[in-house]
Order: sequence, then structure tokens, then C-alpha cells
Amino acid sequence: MPHATAPELREFAERVLGAAGLAPAHAASAAAGLVAANLRGVDSHGVLRLTQYVASIEGGEIELDPDVRVVFRRGSTALVDAGGGYGFAPAQLAMDTAIELAREHAIGFVGVRGSHHFGMGASYVLRAAEAGLIGWLTTTSQPVVVPTGSAVPVVGNNPIAYAIPRQAPHPPILLDMALSEVAFGKIRLAAAEGRPIPLGWGFDAQGRPTTDASAALAAEALAPTGGHKGSGLAIVGEVLAGVLTGSPFGLASHAHAHRSGGVGHLLTAIDPAVFVTREEFEAGVEELVTQLKSATRAEGVSELLLPGEIERRTEEARRAGGIPVSDELTTKLAALAARLGVEPPAWA
Amino acid sequence: MPHATAPELREFAERVLGAAGLAPAHAASAAAGLVAANLRGVDSHGVLRLTQYVASIEGGEIELDPDVRVVFRRGSTALVDAGGGYGFAPAQLAMDTAIELAREHAIGFVGVRGSHHFGMGASYVLRAAEAGLIGWLTTTSQPVVVPTGSAVPVVGNNPIAYAIPRQAPHPPILLDMALSEVAFGKIRLAAAEGRPIPLGWGFDAQGRPTTDASAALAAEALAPTGGHKGSGLAIVGEVLAGVLTGSPFGLASHAHAHRSGGVGHLLTAIDPAVFVTREEFEAGVEELVTQLKSATRAEGVSELLLPGEIERRTEEARRAGGIPVSDELTTKLAALAARLGVEPPAWA
Repeated sequence: MPHATAPELREFAERVLGAAGLAPAHAASAAAGLVAANLRGVDSHGVLRLTQYVASIEGGEIELDPDVRVVFRRGSTALVDAGGGYGFAPAQLAMDTAIELAREHAIGFVGVRGSHHFGMGASYVLRAAEAGLIGWLTTTSQPVVVPTGSAVPVVGNNPIAYAIPRQAPHPPILLDMALSEVAFGKIRLAAAEGRPIPLGWGFDAQGRPTTDASAALAAEALAPTGGHKGSGLAIVGEVLAGVLTGSPFGLASHAHAHRSGGVGHLLTAIDPAVFVTREEFEAGVEELVTQLKSATRAEGVSELLLPGEIERRTEEARRAGGIPVSDELTTKLAALAARLGVEPPAWA
Repeated sequence: MPHATAPELREFAERVLGAAGLAPAHAASAAAGLVAANLRGVDSHGVLRLTQYVASIEGGEIELDPDVRVVFRRGSTALVDAGGGYGFAPAQLAMDTAIELAREHAIGFVGVRGSHHFGMGASYVLRAAEAGLIGWLTTTSQPVVVPTGSAVPVVGNNPIAYAIPRQAPHPPILLDMALSEVAFGKIRLAAAEGRPIPLGWGFDAQGRPTTDASAALAAEALAPTGGHKGSGLAIVGEVLAGVLTGSPFGLASHAHAHRSGGVGHLLTAIDPAVFVTREEFEAGVEELVTQLKSATRAEGVSELLLPGEIERRTEEARRAGGIPVSDELTTKLAALAARLGVEPPAWA
């Protein structure tokens, strides 16, 4: 499999998005966001998305040169308007604003309205953790999750992410998860390989639980994680990231409605020293980590890993050895580049 | 089955807790909290707990007359010290403080340290919703959840609860859930009836997934909901409600360590008008509710229900027709009353 360096991949993505019409700064922030996901091994949110992004841009779903700005700051809160473009720059601005607010007020609580896909949620909560703060976010997404009792999708898989800072030199504990039982990527892969999926992953067009990967894929109907629990959390996510921020929600979200500004986000930064000293917080987290990592392991488990630890190791490996890009994806990206008249992938 | 009125049940619980040693105000707040759970049909958190509570009190795990106080208020944040008693009064004080802070600053973020069991989380987020605010909370609990990869419990099932206020006269959307796949109550019931449990609910003492209800019960080992997702959320819960608030966490939590002050909580109130007007928020929530309730229903489903709607209906029915208390539980409670020298249950 070909390997690309992160800069090669980022420059390629930036050229493609720029040629599709995104203003340079936005092409750069989106490209960097996609490659950040590839680096962590979250390839579903990496340059694989370029085809879809170009289609969204060409479909008029994305503002090309949006005015991303802080609408207001008030106490611990602020609102960012994404101007109908992609969510990368707005979510960065929102978390950076939340960090400033948390430094002053112990907590920063920032909404983003009128946004779009922001890539991998981990990117933004990591900014908080790198600043020594706890980061939390939630976002709406296109409505692909079937709430408990329904036969059709109504809510998004509304990813949530948390980053917990640790004493140097330890990387943060990082949880980044969607509220569907599995990501579409897993169902897409099973369909491509003609394999059935387990009951409990998705539904067919009639809203029946299905083992037919193609049927679930065609219906775009995912099961919530943990049944009614994930369903309830996804509904709450529509309210927090959608209704509360003044963004579309539910069936009006995102690409489903083929409109710009169809996504909302909510980002929070919390000072670990809000109730205890930073030293006490850090010592507590290390004690918890010790408990988690030294617990008796289940049969066949060689090491206990913290949330985000696999991704961190993948990032170290990929920074050193490059990012694997399948021949199939490389061919697709080369075709996209050719159509847009930009230089072909450097790693091909 | 005998039925008790809510006041009968509350007065009985108050007498029992008072006779066990709790100071009158704390006996009253705990009794009211337990019966609030019975009213909503959350009987696992109702007067069923009295036997366990009395054992905890007699075991010296609970401060009898704790000094529950706000340690400080600073901007949008405050810290409550529970003084080592039960969590009912401290969690109420914390949410009421969060409500005041949210009225002034749009968000109120309040930690509770040195607390204990607070009953049903719904009670506290409902206070926020009744004040027109969004309520959110999380709490530590005794370590009964086996994190992904482990063979033994390390973290709590760390319940989380959200309440979303709606336009009058609609009751709030209310999500109150633990991060275990199922509650112990379900496993206890299966064990009592000699039924197996599905794989994925719990583990045996060797950390192997088990269908043996008694084995899971003996190991006190629950599976996290949604596998690594619930596991990750439970770890985050230990940090937010435990480490951050200066309370015990992980293996040091709660009854496991038979110490007072073994539980921490974190409560938040959010003004729905922080980013949009209240009218816009309310209209958005109603539109989302319409989408959820008018979606095509799955086969065999007669009505689509919002989170918390069943519990609300149960409460209406039980306020009108009384709270069913099984003969078995009534007998147990009568024995407890006799031992403590208080009047027997009025409904027996």
C-alpha cells in the first residue's frame, strides 16, 4: 500500500479543496483537519472525505469564503457564527474562545451556529487539553440514527468528545465517539465484501433490524448505541448542538437538507483547578489511570488501554512512517485531481 | 399488591431513617428523594433502598447531621460540600445554586464533594427544567462497571441525567441513565427467578462474560453500555464527578470503601436563551418533538415516546392511585420498622 507523508496529504487536500472553490484559508483549515484524522488512524474522517466534500461544494451546500466570527462573548459564554462554511475553522475558533473564557472564568461554553462537517471531534478537545484544560464537545450530524420505537432515522449520530489533560509528559485521555452503535464505514465495508452485519447495527428501509449490510446502507439507518440510552443521548445532542445554538436539527440538519449552515456544535473548556488545585487534579487522574491500567486483564488481553491511546500510538507511527493510502483511494483521488485540474497525488 | 400513598411512604421512610440516626432534616430530604423515585416508577431507587440505607448508617458510612454548605461561588461556578452525608440535600442545594448562577451568567456549573447516594438523578435536573433551564448532571457511584479489556470492575455506572424544558404545559424531556448496559436490579431479578441473563450484561468473578445471573451478581460486575463507548463515558464520569470535585473515584468510591463522603456529583444548569431567544428555543424543541413523535413507527410500536415520558405517566397514575409495594417488600420494611422501634407501614 502506498504511504503518504502528512504534509504531502495536506497539500494535496488543500489543492483539491481550493480548486473546488474554497477560499485559501478555509481550504487550508479543512485539509489540515482531514489529515489530522488520518494521522490518528481515524481514516473515515480523513482524505477519504474529499470526494464527498467536493460534491457538497459543487452542490452549493457550502459557503466558499464564509465570515467566521465571534458574535458575542458574555461571561463564560460565547457564540460563533460559521457563516455556512465547513466547521473546521469555526470549531477551532470556538474552542480557542472557550479556552480563553475558561482561563478567566474557570469554564467556557461556546456555541457554533450555521456550520457544517468539522471532521474529527478529537481535534478540538485536544486543543483544550493541550492548554491544560478539560475539553468537551458535541455536534449535530446528518440524521442517520433511528430513535427507539421509530422505523426511520430522525436524529444524528451526534458525536461527543472529551479530552482530560494529564501531567506532562502523558498525552490526554481522549474519548471521541458517535452515538450510533457502529460507524457507517463498518457497514459500507461489510456491504462491499458481501458480508452480513450483526443484528443491532442498522435497519432496512422498512425499519426492521437487518443483517443485510446493503439494505442498511441504502436506508442510511443506524441503530443508536446501547438502544434507548444512545437514542436518548442523540436526542439531547440535537437540542444542545442544534436547537440551543440556533442551528438546524433533526430532519433539517446537514446534507440531508442540502443547505449551507446545516450543522451546529457546542464546545466547552473547563479549568481542572475549578474546585481543587491543579496538583490535586493531576494526582487524581494519575491514580485513576494507575487503577485502570493495573486492573486484572480479561482473557486474551495483553494490555489495558486508555480511551484515545491506540489513536495516539497510530499518530506516532504515522508521523514517523507515513500514512497508508490504499491503491483504490489513491486512484479515486487521482481522478478527482485530474477532473479539477490539480497536480496528482505525490505519493502515487 | 398493597398500594401506599406517597405521603404514607414518605412518612414511613422518614421515621425509619430518623430512628436509624439521621438528623430530622436529612431524614426528610432522603425520604422525599426515595419516594420521588417510587412515584416515577423507578422503584430500584425508592424505599426498596431503606434496608441498605439503614445498614450504611449503622455501618458508620454516613454522617448523621452533616453540615451541607456552599464552599464558594465564583463567576458561573460553585462548590458544595456534602459533609459526608447522603446526597439528597447537597444535590438539591447544588442544583438550586446552579439555577441561580445560570440566571445571572447563563450557565451554572456546580461540584459536590464528599457526598453519598443521591437517589434518582432525575429529581435534580427536573428542578432546573421546572425553573425553565436545561439541567445536566453526572455522579460517581460504587465501582461496579468493568472497563473494556479488564476482568474486574474499576469504575462506577456513573449515571448521567439531562432535562430539557418545554413550552408549558408540556413536561420536560428527561433522560436519566446509568452507563452500565443494565441495572443490577434486572440481574438480581433473573437470579431470584433462576433465569439466565443475556451475554453482555455482566461478568463472573474471573471476568468472563456470563449468562449466569448469580455469578454476575456475586462478582458485582456489570458491562458498560455500548462496550467501549459506555466504558469511556464511565471513565470520564470518574474524572468529572470524582477527581474534578475533590471526591473519591474509582476503587476508592462509595460503599466499596465503606467510608463517608465517598461520592461526588457535578450539576449544571444552562439558560436556553444563552444563544437564541427563549421563544426560538421553545419553538425548536417543539419542532424536534413533532419530528420524533410523528416518525414512522417500527412494527408493533403503538406510540413513540420521548425520554422520560413513561415515567411521567407513571407518576400521574401513582399520584392518583397510589404506589404499589409488593407484599415481600412490605414485610421486609415492617421487620425493619419493628427492629428500629418505629410504627409499621400504614399501607400493610
